[in-house]
Amino acid sequence: MTSPLHLGLEPHFAALESFLAEQEASFEPEVRPMVREVLAHPGKRLRPLLAFGSGAGIGPSIDLVRGAAIVELVHLATLVHDDVLDGADTRHGADTPNHTHGAHAAVLFGDALFAHALVLASEHTSSTLCSIVARASRDVCSGEVCQTFSRDNQSLSLADYQRQIRMKTAVLFEAACRVGALVAGYPQVHIDACAAFGLHLGIAYQMYDDFVDLLQDDAKAGKTLGTDAASGKLTLPMLLERDRRKVDILAELRQGRSAREAISAETWRECFRMLDAEVASAEQALAAIEGSPSPFYLLRLTGFLRQAAAKLAPSA
Amino acid sequence: MTSPLHLGLEPHFAALESFLAEQEASFEPEVRPMVREVLAHPGKRLRPLLAFGSGAGIGPSIDLVRGAAIVELVHLATLVHDDVLDGADTRHGADTPNHTHGAHAAVLFGDALFAHALVLASEHTSSTLCSIVARASRDVCSGEVCQTFSRDNQSLSLADYQRQIRMKTAVLFEAACRVGALVAGYPQVHIDACAAFGLHLGIAYQMYDDFVDLLQDDAKAGKTLGTDAASGKLTLPMLLERDRRKVDILAELRQGRSAREAISAETWRECFRMLDAEVASAEQALAAIEGSPSPFYLLRLTGFLRQAAAKLAPSA
Repeated sequence: MTSPLHLGLEPHFAALESFLAEQEASFEPEVRPMVREVLAHPGKRLRPLLAFGSGAGIGPSIDLVRGAAIVELVHLATLVHDDVLDGADTRHGADTPNHTHGAHAAVLFGDALFAHALVLASEHTSSTLCSIVARASRDVCSGEVCQTFSRDNQSLSLADYQRQIRMKTAVLFEAACRVGALVAGYPQVHIDACAAFGLHLGIAYQMYDDFVDLLQDDAKAGKTLGTDAASGKLTLPMLLERDRRKVDILAELRQGRSAREAISAETWRECFRMLDAEVASAEQALAAIEGSPSPFYLLRLTGFLRQAAAKLAPSA
Repeated sequence: MTSPLHLGLEPHFAALESFLAEQEASFEPEVRPMVREVLAHPGKRLRPLLAFGSGAGIGPSIDLVRGAAIVELVHLATLVHDDVLDGADTRHGADTPNHTHGAHAAVLFGDALFAHALVLASEHTSSTLCSIVARASRDVCSGEVCQTFSRDNQSLSLADYQRQIRMKTAVLFEAACRVGALVAGYPQVHIDACAAFGLHLGIAYQMYDDFVDLLQDDAKAGKTLGTDAASGKLTLPMLLERDRRKVDILAELRQGRSAREAISAETWRECFRMLDAEVASAEQALAAIEGSPSPFYLLRLTGFLRQAAAKLAPSA
């Protein structure tokens, strides 16, 4: 793995992968292949990066590596369940536990993976780490329940959307930063600054992800319906366009209008302005710790998100 | 609730129900109805009873009530997921979250419920409680994964069966006892005695439950196929009979032979002997703390199990 996002943290990420691989032994022999499978095709390891960046200035200590692994395992557990719920057969080009072992085993395995993350969190003497991780996990799942209940809800408010993306995505980003800064022994002002960075970055990241869902296929082929619209999930561009034109935006998208046609350039500009504002808030949150090494690692994430957003934005 | 199992612990159980009801407020408004639903139709509250019995001698302190609630919430979370996996529409005569809200919301709600149990565990200053609860939860789910993989496995060994029932049931009984004794401030000898009681009781309870699955409908109507045999789950009576007669016992049961016909009286006697031995081991584990109030409360559980087993045993 030589992602530019990992530059300068190569020993941390190497230690992380070793640590994650070692976790297999904590599971029953029958379960170990499932552990190997979810670890074999790593994603971007964004949450460990947040932990490492927030705890920067110390080496890859066992506490820091374990902290990064804990948040990644919680994330992986939610992915295992997401893949069951979406009936997804592949992720990162590899078969999902849902596909290989069936929904039954995959739900239970996701539970076991999540429980194992909490076992690791409980290895810290203080219960603070357990509290951070368990609270974030509860919020992630609650946020997803709320989103599930909101499907096809035409009157979903902007405030509901913002609450949902904060819970389902941003609180785990925030927790990753908090865990990293905490186990690295930083003072509260550093922990809080990193946590605020993570929260704003998580919101921005989910907004970006929602924009991609609407724009990606559009950019390539033209008219493929985004998965969000197909499943009745109203995201920011849809909400803003609905309020602007007082239309059934889900119906328009489902009837085959592309996201560039159905959602006005003015709405898209507003969406990207709101995304920019969150990215800027994330960056600004680090002002309080400008003298620490954390901004050097963390700001590359906002930089990459700025770049990706600029590439995605419809030129209008 | 006036179960004879709860005698002398009425204030504890009243405090437990209040505490559980208060947890609703920790969830998002959309999720609260689901919390109410799983709490509205209480089961036997066996795990809280284990916690209260193990911590007996102190009143219903907040620590003890919280400890009992934590293990019950973990249990309820596993039931929510079990009902999704079994496609079950009712439990204790009430609709399941799976039925009312769909599998998607029910999986995520189970996750949130489990995470909330860990949030409560993290309210203890020491991370010991988190560790006990998270380890037990991991084992429960891992045990269920193993059992899922064992379906229709004709060569399942007795050792595998014993490992699976220990993990999927007995470790949470053990954890309930450990938590109760720990938060009540008892010394290690007391904690370990109660934990051993819980482990043996849990094994005995799961064996009994497996016997019921084979014998209950048989006793009433004659030939209804037990759900375990239908789903390819080999339990103790089937394993012993398979080894005795070298037959495909699952096939025999599925072809309509009743459990009294397919499984010999000799095998049934051996099964109930093994159940008795576990019950006796549970009782014996309390010898180390005979002078404490815990046996008074805990032994009623083995007493009831002895009675239920005696009623169930085929008279041969």
